[in-house]
Amino acid sequence: MKSKSETFCLKLVIAYDGGAYFGWQRQPNGMSVQQRIEEVLEKLCGQHVNVYGASRTDTGVHALGMVAHIEWSKISLAIPELHRALNALLPEDLRVLAIARAAQSFHARFDAVSKLYRYRILNSPIGDPFRRGASWFIPQKLNVTAMREAAAFFVGKHNFSSVAVNPGYERTTMVRHIHRCAVIKKSDEVHVEIEGDGFLYKMVRTIVGTLVEVGYKRRTSESVRELLKSRDRRLAGQTAPAHGLFLVRVRYR
Amino acid sequence: MKSKSETFCLKLVIAYDGGAYFGWQRQPNGMSVQQRIEEVLEKLCGQHVNVYGASRTDTGVHALGMVAHIEWSKISLAIPELHRALNALLPEDLRVLAIARAAQSFHARFDAVSKLYRYRILNSPIGDPFRRGASWFIPQKLNVTAMREAAAFFVGKHNFSSVAVNPGYERTTMVRHIHRCAVIKKSDEVHVEIEGDGFLYKMVRTIVGTLVEVGYKRRTSESVRELLKSRDRRLAGQTAPAHGLFLVRVRYR
Repeated sequence: MKSKSETFCLKLVIAYDGGAYFGWQRQPNGMSVQQRIEEVLEKLCGQHVNVYGASRTDTGVHALGMVAHIEWSKISLAIPELHRALNALLPEDLRVLAIARAAQSFHARFDAVSKLYRYRILNSPIGDPFRRGASWFIPQKLNVTAMREAAAFFVGKHNFSSVAVNPGYERTTMVRHIHRCAVIKKSDEVHVEIEGDGFLYKMVRTIVGTLVEVGYKRRTSESVRELLKSRDRRLAGQTAPAHGLFLVRVRYR
Repeated sequence: MKSKSETFCLKLVIAYDGGAYFGWQRQPNGMSVQQRIEEVLEKLCGQHVNVYGASRTDTGVHALGMVAHIEWSKISLAIPELHRALNALLPEDLRVLAIARAAQSFHARFDAVSKLYRYRILNSPIGDPFRRGASWFIPQKLNVTAMREAAAFFVGKHNFSSVAVNPGYERTTMVRHIHRCAVIKKSDEVHVEIEGDGFLYKMVRTIVGTLVEVGYKRRTSESVRELLKSRDRRLAGQTAPAHGLFLVRVRYR
């Protein structure tokens, strides 16, 4: 009798500095985070292992708590050993923070119920050499109160066509449920934290770009209500640069 | 009658990520911080301007508050304008935090009465993609209490031959006065803060490398007393890597 090859599902929590990566998802133009992890897993177990991420972060976007899952069959490496070996072989800008067994049916993307993103703006007259890769430097003083008022309009279940790019692969609905959109002053930084059940392509960065225009007093807080109704991307602000954005956390049931 | 060219002395406070620089001081092997600033000043005023720094930080060492002075004669640029123009032309890893007029006799190096250095150790089991260029990652748990006991032996007026490299250009005395040597636990980091009237070549990093051996329990706190007496560099710990070291502040009378 042949022994059945046993596989089990592992949940990984991953942090990365996105600066050197062409985003999470494997693609032909350059190195992605997914590809880097898959290459190291292949070295460790001698065959290709698919890594399924909860979210496709764009080129340059960072993660503090990306979640992914793999089907793992190599039992010669215990989980803590796999964890140490992975971090030993991965580059320093990419760390596996935790690995744990998950239910056999667990899927990092389809089971996610919400994601929290944080966008960091460095709002001081002079930049900071040590935060330049991890924040959007805006020297002009932002009106945080106005930004906060505007942010409230994004909360709820809306069609977000006006603050997203439809790259073709999005599902037909442009409706998402945003649970929280907070503008937080933190010493010389302004953070925008957005939590929701899902996000359209470039949605968080377009929301931030629009809130910054409110912070500049270039548009009113009220105008955001009209913007959402319009479903017209041309009326929104610029897409905020990728290097200020962090995927903070993914929630599951 | 020829008009006398009026010059005045400006004091600059400078922050930089040392990662891309061959230290502060101009030298033939690569770009230094001093050279970068002098090049931009030359663009702004049409002639070479010497920048005198308080300290020669080594390749890869960072600064939060380097102090320098220049002799400035171009009166068409007011000081706030010079400040803005400098930061506009300097790269993002190098910022002039402040410029102010100083006494005509002010000398950034010779008038300094003390310098404060901070060494950051990231002491957590897994590294951090966002602190990898600004801390020494040590996964093994350090004994901070033992390090603190050892640090106390460095305080005072001592011959520091055993924790420094004599590169030939040092003044003959190896005696320095250390006012403070503190080991501080700050969430998942251990900081070593050293303030003194002057430092020998690689002295701070050798002190840190030695304290880390104490933190590993590879040597006793007491052994540091013997080390100082020995004046033998071979008995000290390794030179801690440059990317954890920050020149924090320079004090003047």
